[in-house]
Amino acid sequence: MAVKKIGKQTVRLKNPPSIISTYSIVGPKEGDGPLKEYFDFILQDDLCGQKTWEKCESKILEDAIKMAIKNAQLSEKKVEYVLAGDLLNQIISSSFAVRNLGIPYFGLYGACSTMAESLSLGSMLIDGGYADYLVCATSSHFCTAERQFRFPLELGNQRPPTSQWTVTGAGAAVLSSNGLGPYITHVTTGKVVDAGIKDVNNMGAAMAPAAADTIIQHFKDTGYRIDDYDLIITGDLGIIGKEIAEEFITKAGYDISKIFTDCGIEIFDNERQDTHAGGSGCGCSASVFCGYIYKLLKDKTLNRVLLISTGALHSTTSSQQGESIPGIAHAVTISNTKE
Amino acid sequence: MAVKKIGKQTVRLKNPPSIISTYSIVGPKEGDGPLKEYFDFILQDDLCGQKTWEKCESKILEDAIKMAIKNAQLSEKKVEYVLAGDLLNQIISSSFAVRNLGIPYFGLYGACSTMAESLSLGSMLIDGGYADYLVCATSSHFCTAERQFRFPLELGNQRPPTSQWTVTGAGAAVLSSNGLGPYITHVTTGKVVDAGIKDVNNMGAAMAPAAADTIIQHFKDTGYRIDDYDLIITGDLGIIGKEIAEEFITKAGYDISKIFTDCGIEIFDNERQDTHAGGSGCGCSASVFCGYIYKLLKDKTLNRVLLISTGALHSTTSSQQGESIPGIAHAVTISNTKE
Repeated sequence: MAVKKIGKQTVRLKNPPSIISTYSIVGPKEGDGPLKEYFDFILQDDLCGQKTWEKCESKILEDAIKMAIKNAQLSEKKVEYVLAGDLLNQIISSSFAVRNLGIPYFGLYGACSTMAESLSLGSMLIDGGYADYLVCATSSHFCTAERQFRFPLELGNQRPPTSQWTVTGAGAAVLSSNGLGPYITHVTTGKVVDAGIKDVNNMGAAMAPAAADTIIQHFKDTGYRIDDYDLIITGDLGIIGKEIAEEFITKAGYDISKIFTDCGIEIFDNERQDTHAGGSGCGCSASVFCGYIYKLLKDKTLNRVLLISTGALHSTTSSQQGESIPGIAHAVTISNTKE
Repeated sequence: MAVKKIGKQTVRLKNPPSIISTYSIVGPKEGDGPLKEYFDFILQDDLCGQKTWEKCESKILEDAIKMAIKNAQLSEKKVEYVLAGDLLNQIISSSFAVRNLGIPYFGLYGACSTMAESLSLGSMLIDGGYADYLVCATSSHFCTAERQFRFPLELGNQRPPTSQWTVTGAGAAVLSSNGLGPYITHVTTGKVVDAGIKDVNNMGAAMAPAAADTIIQHFKDTGYRIDDYDLIITGDLGIIGKEIAEEFITKAGYDISKIFTDCGIEIFDNERQDTHAGGSGCGCSASVFCGYIYKLLKDKTLNRVLLISTGALHSTTSSQQGESIPGIAHAVTISNTKE
């Protein structure tokens, strides 16, 4: 019997893993934004000494993983798994990032939902007794994403107001069967939800229905009330997506407005930094969680947070073939108590 | 404590999940090969009524998942997770395949190692008490892979003798906390191993060191002897990669030659079908396992099998930027007893 299952899509961990350390690295633009004090490392430029943007993305992911392990005062040999993924074709940032680590590796793809996907699977692997230490990590890079999904950077193409700005950043979290918290206590795994959006410049709208679906299901499954949480933060719906998701969630009877925000909104100062609908990319919720939220949990400014990373599951090929953009959202409860 | 961990990279499942059903679909070429009697469904052409090869690949993956669930006499509502991935950019085959299912979904990317990756994570989710029923699935398609990774099909480009033929096929397996076997008893998770191979037409050589590494580690971790197994079958090393892997494994003191083969070798009649070094693609080990090996386990022709799916973790971008091709291999023990 699935003894740890509660409700339809949620798991309640019996031995909640502790997030014993994190590390975040962001690019210069993110490092000039409202959260700059919180990030562990800010790049001087978008190549960080590498020859290509892709190699830079892989390097910052590797560095984030290594530094998170170091911050946990662990040797790399003690780490039993790395669970990682990114936006690039065949998730090369992740595969190349772990190539020199010698740690068993599960590659994931959930688009921008990958941070919560890795925390979900990682926390079940710890709770289930399969590992004592593992790393969950992901990255994105503005330049690698732009040229892969949209246009050559050199084209200087105009961006519509609904578009989001892919975050250059990486985040890594070390989960342990021991530790003083914060703990991952619940995992709500998302379904693919396709609302029929075909506009590749409006990811927020494409992902919002999936985010709403997972958040509503989380409350149904757990029986939590809104005020059991200090913060509900989506991965990167941005300004437009957050508004749509909030409308869905409110209609379902959950008024989360007072404690609801989005990593893509928090990471940039839109007025000053001209990021249109806000930040996006796997590295958005990764760096905001690992850099910012984790520290607020550690110093007890926050005590229970619902992190929902959201992904748009399309490719340039699927869009060129006329397909809509399905979304997915995975949620994890991160709490200073094991309850 | 990680009570289910044995040795460095292996997990021994306390409540081994049962594979209660499988389903396999292959293309016309695979359906004309030596295993044709074993596949559950053979396509008449490589579009199966769809407008594009990509849509065809997604459709056969969706059909395989649905039919595996049907064969298990389950309703889709009973299935708690789908774990799936494929070779296409942003794993669109998988995301679109599960879009209409309404089942929580973890997207994976392990290149051609994905079938064993999904069985690895899936079996831990069942064993750990997080689900009673889930589906592990993956697919590939000759035409989608060729045009994404290599050349336009229409070019009719020459293929060197070391090249492999991407299998058009999909496989899905339903895992359950209950059932009469075969059971997944052990999971050995691979590390990324990079031997420096840069030839994108010699994937076998790129993946062989990773396969050898995982197989050797499996025997070290478990203490199994070679004759504890009836069959050791790699995912898709093909003729060249298998030879290299076998040499590594023999040098490490394990003579597996009598029971060692490869899905990429078994699926085609190379003499007649002109497939050069053999089959490859996520769908290769998926269709060979779900179509062939599973049936031999069910009728007790085989009683304990080590399935090792192998992946080459590169992209066209990484190769164009001069990177080598790292490999990975994940192994699962599938046995008619729970030991």
